[in-house]
Amino acid sequence: SLQYEKIYRPDPKMLDRPLDSFARRHLGPSPKNVAYMLKTMGYEDLDGFVNSLVPPDILKKRPLLLEAPAEGFGEQEMLEHMEQIANKNKYKVKNLIGKGYYGTILPPVIQRNLLESPEWYTSYTPYQPEISQGRLESLLNFQTVISDLTGLPVANASLLDEGTAAGEAMLLSYNLSRRKKTKYVIDSRVHPQTKSVLLTRAHPFDIELIEIDTSHVENALEVLKDPKVAGCLVQYPATDGSILSGEVLSSFAEVLHANKGLFSVASDLMALTLLKPPADFGADIVLGSSQRFGVPMGFGGPHAAFFSVVEKLNRKIPGRIVGVSKDRLNKPALRLALQTREQHIKRDKATSNICTAQALLANVAANYCVYHGPEGLKDIAERIYGMTTILANAIQSKFSKFSISNKNWFDTLTIDLNGNSSSKAILNKALEKYNMNLFAVDENIVSLSLDETTTREDLVNLVKIFTDSSDVTKFISEGNEFPVFPKQYARFDKILTDPVFNTHHSETAMLRYLHRLQSRDLSLANSMIPLGSCTMKLNSTVEMMPITWPQFGNIHPFQPVDQVEGYKELLSSLERDLCTITGFDGISLQPNSGAQGEYTGLRVIRSYLESKGESHRDVCLIPVSAHGTNPASAAMCGMKVVPVNCLTDGSLDLSDLKLQADKYKDNLAAVMITYPSTYGLFEPGIQNAFKVIHENGGQVYLDGANMNAQVGLTSPGDLGADVCHLNLHKTFSIPHGGGGPAGAPIGVKSHLIPHLPKHDVVDIVTAVKSEYSIDSVGSAPYGNPLVLPISYAYIKMMGREGLPFSSVIAMLNANYMMTRLKNHYNILFISQESKNRHCAHEFIIDLREYKKKGVEAIDVAKRLQDYGFHAPTLAFPVPGTLMVEPTESENLEELDRFVDSMIAIKGEIEAFIAGEPKGQVLKNAPHSLEDLVSEDWSARGYTREEAAFPLAFLKNNKFWPPVARLDDAYGDMNLMCTCPSVLEVANDDA
Amino acid sequence: SLQYEKIYRPDPKMLDRPLDSFARRHLGPSPKNVAYMLKTMGYEDLDGFVNSLVPPDILKKRPLLLEAPAEGFGEQEMLEHMEQIANKNKYKVKNLIGKGYYGTILPPVIQRNLLESPEWYTSYTPYQPEISQGRLESLLNFQTVISDLTGLPVANASLLDEGTAAGEAMLLSYNLSRRKKTKYVIDSRVHPQTKSVLLTRAHPFDIELIEIDTSHVENALEVLKDPKVAGCLVQYPATDGSILSGEVLSSFAEVLHANKGLFSVASDLMALTLLKPPADFGADIVLGSSQRFGVPMGFGGPHAAFFSVVEKLNRKIPGRIVGVSKDRLNKPALRLALQTREQHIKRDKATSNICTAQALLANVAANYCVYHGPEGLKDIAERIYGMTTILANAIQSKFSKFSISNKNWFDTLTIDLNGNSSSKAILNKALEKYNMNLFAVDENIVSLSLDETTTREDLVNLVKIFTDSSDVTKFISEGNEFPVFPKQYARFDKILTDPVFNTHHSETAMLRYLHRLQSRDLSLANSMIPLGSCTMKLNSTVEMMPITWPQFGNIHPFQPVDQVEGYKELLSSLERDLCTITGFDGISLQPNSGAQGEYTGLRVIRSYLESKGESHRDVCLIPVSAHGTNPASAAMCGMKVVPVNCLTDGSLDLSDLKLQADKYKDNLAAVMITYPSTYGLFEPGIQNAFKVIHENGGQVYLDGANMNAQVGLTSPGDLGADVCHLNLHKTFSIPHGGGGPAGAPIGVKSHLIPHLPKHDVVDIVTAVKSEYSIDSVGSAPYGNPLVLPISYAYIKMMGREGLPFSSVIAMLNANYMMTRLKNHYNILFISQESKNRHCAHEFIIDLREYKKKGVEAIDVAKRLQDYGFHAPTLAFPVPGTLMVEPTESENLEELDRFVDSMIAIKGEIEAFIAGEPKGQVLKNAPHSLEDLVSEDWSARGYTREEAAFPLAFLKNNKFWPPVARLDDAYGDMNLMCTCPSVLEVANDDA
Ligand SMILES: Cc1ncc(COP(=O)(O)O)c(C=O)c1O
Ligand SMILES: Cc1ncc(COP(=O)(O)O)c(C=O)c1O
Ligand SMILES: O=C([O-])O
Repeated sequence: SLQYEKIYRPDPKMLDRPLDSFARRHLGPSPKNVAYMLKTMGYEDLDGFVNSLVPPDILKKRPLLLEAPAEGFGEQEMLEHMEQIANKNKYKVKNLIGKGYYGTILPPVIQRNLLESPEWYTSYTPYQPEISQGRLESLLNFQTVISDLTGLPVANASLLDEGTAAGEAMLLSYNLSRRKKTKYVIDSRVHPQTKSVLLTRAHPFDIELIEIDTSHVENALEVLKDPKVAGCLVQYPATDGSILSGEVLSSFAEVLHANKGLFSVASDLMALTLLKPPADFGADIVLGSSQRFGVPMGFGGPHAAFFSVVEKLNRKIPGRIVGVSKDRLNKPALRLALQTREQHIKRDKATSNICTAQALLANVAANYCVYHGPEGLKDIAERIYGMTTILANAIQSKFSKFSISNKNWFDTLTIDLNGNSSSKAILNKALEKYNMNLFAVDENIVSLSLDETTTREDLVNLVKIFTDSSDVTKFISEGNEFPVFPKQYARFDKILTDPVFNTHHSETAMLRYLHRLQSRDLSLANSMIPLGSCTMKLNSTVEMMPITWPQFGNIHPFQPVDQVEGYKELLSSLERDLCTITGFDGISLQPNSGAQGEYTGLRVIRSYLESKGESHRDVCLIPVSAHGTNPASAAMCGMKVVPVNCLTDGSLDLSDLKLQADKYKDNLAAVMITYPSTYGLFEPGIQNAFKVIHENGGQVYLDGANMNAQVGLTSPGDLGADVCHLNLHKTFSIPHGGGGPAGAPIGVKSHLIPHLPKHDVVDIVTAVKSEYSIDSVGSAPYGNPLVLPISYAYIKMMGREGLPFSSVIAMLNANYMMTRLKNHYNILFISQESKNRHCAHEFIIDLREYKKKGVEAIDVAKRLQDYGFHAPTLAFPVPGTLMVEPTESENLEELDRFVDSMIAIKGEIEAFIAGEPKGQVLKNAPHSLEDLVSEDWSARGYTREEAAFPLAFLKNNKFWPPVARLDDAYGDMNLMCTCPSVLEVANDDA
Repeated sequence: SLQYEKIYRPDPKMLDRPLDSFARRHLGPSPKNVAYMLKTMGYEDLDGFVNSLVPPDILKKRPLLLEAPAEGFGEQEMLEHMEQIANKNKYKVKNLIGKGYYGTILPPVIQRNLLESPEWYTSYTPYQPEISQGRLESLLNFQTVISDLTGLPVANASLLDEGTAAGEAMLLSYNLSRRKKTKYVIDSRVHPQTKSVLLTRAHPFDIELIEIDTSHVENALEVLKDPKVAGCLVQYPATDGSILSGEVLSSFAEVLHANKGLFSVASDLMALTLLKPPADFGADIVLGSSQRFGVPMGFGGPHAAFFSVVEKLNRKIPGRIVGVSKDRLNKPALRLALQTREQHIKRDKATSNICTAQALLANVAANYCVYHGPEGLKDIAERIYGMTTILANAIQSKFSKFSISNKNWFDTLTIDLNGNSSSKAILNKALEKYNMNLFAVDENIVSLSLDETTTREDLVNLVKIFTDSSDVTKFISEGNEFPVFPKQYARFDKILTDPVFNTHHSETAMLRYLHRLQSRDLSLANSMIPLGSCTMKLNSTVEMMPITWPQFGNIHPFQPVDQVEGYKELLSSLERDLCTITGFDGISLQPNSGAQGEYTGLRVIRSYLESKGESHRDVCLIPVSAHGTNPASAAMCGMKVVPVNCLTDGSLDLSDLKLQADKYKDNLAAVMITYPSTYGLFEPGIQNAFKVIHENGGQVYLDGANMNAQVGLTSPGDLGADVCHLNLHKTFSIPHGGGGPAGAPIGVKSHLIPHLPKHDVVDIVTAVKSEYSIDSVGSAPYGNPLVLPISYAYIKMMGREGLPFSSVIAMLNANYMMTRLKNHYNILFISQESKNRHCAHEFIIDLREYKKKGVEAIDVAKRLQDYGFHAPTLAFPVPGTLMVEPTESENLEELDRFVDSMIAIKGEIEAFIAGEPKGQVLKNAPHSLEDLVSEDWSARGYTREEAAFPLAFLKNNKFWPPVARLDDAYGDMNLMCTCPSVLEVANDDA
């Protein structure tokens, strides 16, 4: 505890250590508080506490050899260090590389009031709809944009990236055929990184990927006619810039539909503002990236992918969908719809493992559309098209020795150099003379894509690169002769007609709209979000600042390596630090969510087994307590999921594990275990479990979601795991963004390194190449690099000495709360008698005993909203319970406020059970303002005061749920997931 | 109107014009809206509208030759341009210049969630306390910090800068003697810029400023004994770094008090965390700057000055004071106290003209203290002291040829080079080898001040500069021997003991505190703030972004000119643009508020008259309708204020003006006129008025507060004014910051240019030197340079063609509202019959007729809060009225919501008059949440619904007043203006 004082408060006399220590800001309790909390629990100091908490064979306390000062960088040092790294990226270059990543302008009002606003970025996935109406509305806008532009009625609230979205389309098509149709056709002009992800995703199911050249329509139709074909994916506009005609697209759709196959189209939202929507040609699924709607390229991510489907697929669509429903008072209100489709319910029967997606970026894209409106968007698209065409005209003129290979285009030209130059020479000229990056298709062909940021000057420079005309302005004839998008390909319907896209076009109006949305959401800026398994810790300003620096934002994922030295340095150092922390030998940064990490880890294991001639090993043991993504991911890897029991004390049933391992030993591939367990317990026998698996020829996959209890105390590697994903958005401070972005690198032992994913367009700079590398698991080589500076800064600022205190204080906070609460509630699996006297960093409040008396866990969850809190994790891992995880960033006062609230609720539960009318307060919770001011209150049996201000602190600071309790069933029965209904919501005075 | 379409929405075909046009974002109504609004009022187009609005002799429409593209920069172009300029400032240098400006660290969480947050910076002065509790609480914290650290019980909520604060202290002392004591004594070691401001302020009253050397205590006491001495000001620590002993200070106080003089101390807050508070030695007034508590130096401002006084002066203290009172429900609540002291009530009897102050920066400083707490602040101060002492030891060692002239210090050393080097050589060495700026006191003496940002490496470099020791570390003995602040000077009381300074030390806690405060305030992020005369227009993100760039922030006002090329370019261009816009020949950027502008302009006029041998001219004619600062400023210039009548139609009584001008022609100095008038009217006869003044030997001062109706249509210069201040915080987009910062340059005709203020420490780079220059009106050479990029960007983004539309649309919005409202309310001075059929950019709703029936204007103002709006300007310029100014940034929907609200309130007024119980809703307004959920509602005569949601739009978006109507009288009777009471506020459940 002395050590804690030292870490927390730097000595003014020690001049080497800056006074703006991060630890003091990241960690909630002061040394004085810590002493008090320890005393409450009967401990002398933190060491004693940790020693009695973490089993001795688990506790390793290996020094963390981080690349930072032992006590971490000061906050200002960190920013300076970050700036130095950032400036090593070549970020003032114009990136015309295209391929799914484009220059865009993030409107400053959205940057400041959304992307840089903790009210937006610290919120959680909107599972508690009553306190999430703002981002739900914004995500509904996103879905409406997607639905409007693609022409398909149902869209989801984002997927991880275009590549995995394509993967989802393929698997949806495959699964729809009940896995009977084993061929999948793709246009050769799909983006190369998408192809790579499709290869990855096809492999476990032995789906045969067939690439066709759609310019040979007859041949293509011939291939599509095969009844084994589950579906086809074309890119529209294609990666070379060309646009397939409506006739061709329709003919594909017809042939596919004749055999009950699905027609999928990867498209571009900016193009779709002008282009006929794929729905017009019979597309069943349209997908792509919304990056160019205001989201920085960020070296590849995070960006929100989109996915829309025809009506009949609306219950098959992967990912989260926002839908309109009603609240208890019949007022329209939004919530996540059709959740029974998702992995947390369907587990290994789920058709997708996606969990955290890209909500924050979807919200940027949606608000980009709100701000620009249909005219604004079309203006941008028209200018892009016009400039592209002017350039094409120049290249096709007598002043150029080159030619355009794509017959038509929106923003992309593929230029055949006709042997008159080399790609290398042209790229060099563009870079050195004009500071532009183009893309080399091969030695003799280059391509380029224009975008929102392209200026007249850029256009002039491009003309100079590709022609020898000195008077380039002649190609840039403005006014009358400005090229207009060809009628043949154009859409003529009105887009984005909903008022929300036609109202907020002044900055003042936009500011207010963003502010209004934000004020309807509870985030970490309001109060603790004690979500077990989610680790809602501080996302500090210093960590977040670099996210909107152009040095990190304006980098294309396919930019030449020598231009991304800054990222290279940052990512390499982060990998090394993560290796130290986890005890692993290698890291892949590619997985961009926990579920993706699981998928990648399991694929890496399978690849390793395959390389040993054991490709038949396909059994994955998974404890019944596991998070739904575990079985879902295993299933997506083509694995057979075998459940393993848990004991009544919450621990893994080791004998059942042995039994199953033995039973399946010939086919055992892996076990997936969460540690500390999903019950928030340090299981002492874990290393035995690992031994059993290894002895039976399997590999150990550790789900690292609970890493926040391990850092500096133990590690997956030390414990003996072979692979583990690290939810950077939990343990390593990436904010949850209201449902994404995530970051979930996997760490592996050395034998698995050769199998880590590669990338087809660029080499992974931080890795060694290997013949065993699996294909890409995501579109971008490093997952979501733009948010990696957050974790990097977190680690560097906490430092070797500070970082373990994150885990220690997280556990202290949890155990302190539990100590106070256990006098009022049963805590699952914890008792003075059992071997579990402590929880790790989270604990489970058991409410099942009240169920038969009429009080459900959800009543408590909703009533907590009236106390200004987000509910703990509901019903995971055990139905009828609440799992509380405070994290280290909460201070004593806030812990006490939460505990006091739970104790007060206990009184309300008792009142309910005793049949006192006042107990109804639980059933009517949360109490929205409209509810509170409504007239007929007399029947309630409790006062408005009691409903609104059950504890005194609330009068000073309370978050008000904008709607009353949601009616989920109504919404799922009447699925409505695009915008017109928002208007209803807004205007309905019900 | 065609022109408007063109400005509003750039043509995608015109490649020269970026699509991210600012005009579209700044201006509320779309071209379609404009057409509709014109139609409502019976106009065909904007030209017709403007022509019928602005009298033909006023309408000049001179093209504005701005230094920017005709249609303005696009937003991204602007940011790039700004970055180019910014990078021309040498900002990575360490500025050890001191003299009241120090390096400091703005904690990132405060930067992002306060300084960069529109919720904070767009709010207005908290005159409507019910919807301003957040910033009032923060300002109360500021007052508590000041009171705690200075030891004096009463502090105000900020003044403009240290120099003017010293001026206020001097005038307070002088006025307390009923202007009988005409001598004022200052320590020669007061900061030089403060001396200059004192000279300025003393001049009009013929106060004799006597400079004494306080190191000769006996001599000093002799001077102070003179009964003509009104007071004395010392600097503690002094500008040379030395600290006067308690005995000396006490002896000064005693002597002064014996003659009823006042003892004033200019001090430094960081030093005061360690140093004995001046109150201990009998100080009556303590003042200074709070800049180093987190506020960037910003080339001189804006920073909040502080001012505290002994109890007996509590009704004499200048500026705004936040005090604790109660609301209607007896709940403690904050509001501005003792307003009857201020100029808007006392007019020329006021002892200060200060109006807008530095609220935003005071809030930064207050929250810096909240975040660091007493220990954190002391840690910083101790390190500064320790490092300074280590350096002093080195310089006093045998390794140095120099010596320290100050015997003691906190952070500042004055170093006598003893002829062994020259200041120039040392400054050069420091700059070139170590990238540090020191201060040259004279050719042989340099000084330097350490601060929060000084690192060990800096210290090593300083030792290298001043010694020839190669092993500098020997001076930096850490641990045991680290220098400790000498007991003799140290304070031993506890500082900042209030819980607010001891609670929010983690970033999470701080974030929530800032968020909670912000959520209690209504700002432009919520809804229109239609304050007549205040011009609450958009403060756009692009304009605001550069404010927190280090390139602008990290610049010391006394940094050598060749290091501030960026500022020089920006300020010069801004001056030229403002000349074009105003029709003037010269600009001074020094005045940092409107009131300061008035003062400066009048002083310039008097200096001009003096230079013509007409120093006897001292009469200033001011219409009775004038803003209170006008007469107060004139009085502070030693002028005799003569009121001029207004006619019943609101216009100036020209014949009275003639009468007075004639009557006072021998002594006529000036007239002060607001244009368009404070009634919001274009007075046609204005040029005649000017002629009359000129003919009688006077000069014309135009109050430019209403410039927003003039830009591009007419101008003060064209109309014939000689001088005018421009409230940049109104017309030119600087945000109001909840009560400052401001910016109010004055423009002058060429004959006045030689009289513009100079600066004593540095030359004004944008001006020509002149023997006639008046002394400084503020501490910093260019006023508040850090906020000038805002106005610069506003002008450059609107461009020559866009800028006039700000005025035109501002007037369109006002007249549209008025057109709708005049069917329901009387509009003052406006009628179909009178010559005023239109207002300019604002109009006055006359509520006087309802007064006798029991409804006051304040009832309407408070009831508007229930409709989610900030009230219009209340009781200015006419008691019993509301003055509405929507500005150009509001869109049609918002105008309509406000008008609808006013119409609904009209119904409530009628109900009240008819004696219907429902009319009581006006008297109980605003309805706080606690009020709404309270039990005993039955007596109200209206429902909770009617109270809370009188119109449907409110259910979707409503701002909730956190307290009920304030009881002003209670608070003024029980003055309480420091923190302990905040706790009461927070905890009181009354
Ligand atoms: C234990 C566990 N595993 C896996 C996941 C999935 O991670 P993600 O949501 O990033 O896909 C979660 C998410 O909460 C989790 O708690
Ligand atoms: C007409 C007029 N003159 C002068 C001022 C004073 O300006 P400032 O508050 O910046 O001192 C105001 C402020 O509202 C005003 O409206
Ligand atoms: O996202 C979760 O399922 O926790």
